[in-house]
Amino acid sequence: MEQMLLTDSVRRERLLNEFQMDISNLLDWLATYTIEKQPGITRLLYSKEWFNAQKALEARMEERGLTPSFDEVGNLFGTIQGGHSDLPSILVGSHIDTVAQGGKYDGAYGIVAGLIAVDYLQRTYGQPKCTLEVVSLCEEEGSRFPIAYWGSGSIAGERNFQQIKSLRDREGILFVDAMHDCGFGECSAREAVRKDIGTFVELHIEQGGVLEEEGLSIGIVEAIAGQIRLKFEIIGEPNHAGTTPMYMRRDALEGASAMIRWLRDAAVQKGPPLVATVGSLDVSPNVSNVVPGQAIFTVDIRHSDEVALEQFRSEVITQFTSIAAQRGLGIQYVDWFNEKPVPMDENLNRQLVQICDEMDIKYRQMVSGAGHDAQMFKLVCPTALVFVPSQGGISHSPEEYSDARELAVGVLLLVQLLYKLGYAEVEKT
Amino acid sequence: MEQMLLTDSVRRERLLNEFQMDISNLLDWLATYTIEKQPGITRLLYSKEWFNAQKALEARMEERGLTPSFDEVGNLFGTIQGGHSDLPSILVGSHIDTVAQGGKYDGAYGIVAGLIAVDYLQRTYGQPKCTLEVVSLCEEEGSRFPIAYWGSGSIAGERNFQQIKSLRDREGILFVDAMHDCGFGECSAREAVRKDIGTFVELHIEQGGVLEEEGLSIGIVEAIAGQIRLKFEIIGEPNHAGTTPMYMRRDALEGASAMIRWLRDAAVQKGPPLVATVGSLDVSPNVSNVVPGQAIFTVDIRHSDEVALEQFRSEVITQFTSIAAQRGLGIQYVDWFNEKPVPMDENLNRQLVQICDEMDIKYRQMVSGAGHDAQMFKLVCPTALVFVPSQGGISHSPEEYSDARELAVGVLLLVQLLYKLGYAEVEKT
Repeated sequence: MEQMLLTDSVRRERLLNEFQMDISNLLDWLATYTIEKQPGITRLLYSKEWFNAQKALEARMEERGLTPSFDEVGNLFGTIQGGHSDLPSILVGSHIDTVAQGGKYDGAYGIVAGLIAVDYLQRTYGQPKCTLEVVSLCEEEGSRFPIAYWGSGSIAGERNFQQIKSLRDREGILFVDAMHDCGFGECSAREAVRKDIGTFVELHIEQGGVLEEEGLSIGIVEAIAGQIRLKFEIIGEPNHAGTTPMYMRRDALEGASAMIRWLRDAAVQKGPPLVATVGSLDVSPNVSNVVPGQAIFTVDIRHSDEVALEQFRSEVITQFTSIAAQRGLGIQYVDWFNEKPVPMDENLNRQLVQICDEMDIKYRQMVSGAGHDAQMFKLVCPTALVFVPSQGGISHSPEEYSDARELAVGVLLLVQLLYKLGYAEVEKT
Repeated sequence: MEQMLLTDSVRRERLLNEFQMDISNLLDWLATYTIEKQPGITRLLYSKEWFNAQKALEARMEERGLTPSFDEVGNLFGTIQGGHSDLPSILVGSHIDTVAQGGKYDGAYGIVAGLIAVDYLQRTYGQPKCTLEVVSLCEEEGSRFPIAYWGSGSIAGERNFQQIKSLRDREGILFVDAMHDCGFGECSAREAVRKDIGTFVELHIEQGGVLEEEGLSIGIVEAIAGQIRLKFEIIGEPNHAGTTPMYMRRDALEGASAMIRWLRDAAVQKGPPLVATVGSLDVSPNVSNVVPGQAIFTVDIRHSDEVALEQFRSEVITQFTSIAAQRGLGIQYVDWFNEKPVPMDENLNRQLVQICDEMDIKYRQMVSGAGHDAQMFKLVCPTALVFVPSQGGISHSPEEYSDARELAVGVLLLVQLLYKLGYAEVEKT
């Protein structure tokens, strides 16, 4: 069968058209589960919209011949039992929740693509050798409560009920109450932690502009970048903007500006995949006729190589300290975020490369600058993360868009991989 | 008499001690007229504290043999009639109002110094040839209503009742109501506009750190700097801090940083009296993991030479536009404040220099980076503005401080000048 798909371009084209239609319809349908009368899609963990979306997906899975089930935290699984019960499962999917006023592709695409692919495989090839599961992970974004990756983290054993005990959302609603109101919670259903997963594959929109810029259809993720975030406080002296000569100033904003300039040049000079950003800056007293006495800003640096990331962090601190000293400014900083890079599975990626080559799909290997559920699953099994292009690199916005054709190419790739792993070459994984 | 003061250092020392005591007592006394239980001094135009201070000063003036009177806007004058009624008056003084939680010297010193000097001269030398007046100007800071120099401006004809008709303070109280509640307003007393003033001399704290840094007692102001303020908006593109490669960014904050760096270096390179400040900066969306799409900041530039000031403004706009263009950033700006430099009277300054030399007072000539009532009076008569040191250059703060001895030196200088102008050399002015 695999051979036929590869050699018969007419058939492949017809399949792509079918997938394109199915993807569009399913994404538009899922997008109706949102807070009404607001721009974009808002589907926050354990909200009414979230619950309705999961229940609706549950029904869709059933319609398409998958057996749906929930775990205790609200992850939804659609299962096709494999013939060889001793083999570990293959999971495909992503997260059902969104940021406030986000797009309809982020997370939703990975779930829907998985559903279409697994449905197609079952219809076409019957029972797989190992169990195939489509997962709609309950939460990833951290957009309602101050915790992220609640879905994949619970499966991987990185999240637990202790961590969420006192959490509240911005309206003061307790996490546990919201969870219970949806019928979920400790022991409400099957335990979240899983030890029987053999493979996880996630399709996701790129949320960046590289694939579009380079005219490619697929990004095979080599690693999810590690992230370090620091907060710097630069201390100068507030002074009268008229009566204080330039040589008598200790201007915290001017010092911060020198640091921001150095950071950009250094990151550019080191080249991809390093990125470095000062996203937030607050000046005090922030008045037009007073020399700024204080500047507080954040630094966000990311790299797929842990050593390179830590080295750059050190360089940043050293340089900023030197810049402050030259100007007689005080400097303090705190580390407030540190996540190590997570490499994806080389074997899976090799197979993805091969499939792309065989099907003449234009692709590249790349680093993911954003975090994904795949980084949690990597703790428990071989994991692959595959990107499709984002128009203009836009995400977390109602303007988020990916071409349905590109989305279909991702599904086709997924079909091929799942066929290899779940039907054809299952002994070799 | 003048000769005696110059040659008899024992007598001069005794006089300085007398002035020092009187100054301290009067400033501490005047400082009690403030909003209670708040740090620093708060005496806003037409407030209860303001009214009580003016009435108390009125009584003090009377006690010391001056004839007090108010004009229609609430300026208070303490007059000693001169023998030659055809000669124009000599005014000395400053403003009675403060910023919120300011110091006890800013404005108050000029009034109190004038009172002590004129009182001493009358006690010692009797009736002057021309009329001497101590003025407590009702308002200068613009700290209650959105208008400044209401006192000196009304005298100079630069302020009028039309301008304040609809003005309200932050609590919504109308200017005219506050004014009427104090018994002032159009035709409530003598007209504010004056055409009979021959000279105005203002003593004021420096509000900068130059005199202290250089170990000097007196600053003779050559000119009040002109000021230009602009507001720049830099337009980039907000983007994901993780997934957007450095080469695909249009970072508005990084662009603004380059501009802030250039501004400081350019001002330093051109040297005093140019000062240039970015005092306020607002970033959008101002979130640690989003590349800034917008940065709005103010530029405040000051110089005593009008041509140099305008030239620098042009240079700033040209450079910023170039920096924005290099980075593919949008740039817009508005001019929102423009005041021309005001030179002080050369003849008066020559006399002040001579007095300082004769009395061995350490001084320098300098530019005032801040605005003062003197800039209004300059429109109507020869004007001098004299600075005394500010500790640490601090002003508009409860920490504002000037040494009583330094304050007394200023009074001594004023006594000598007024003696020359009002008693000895009156024919030569």
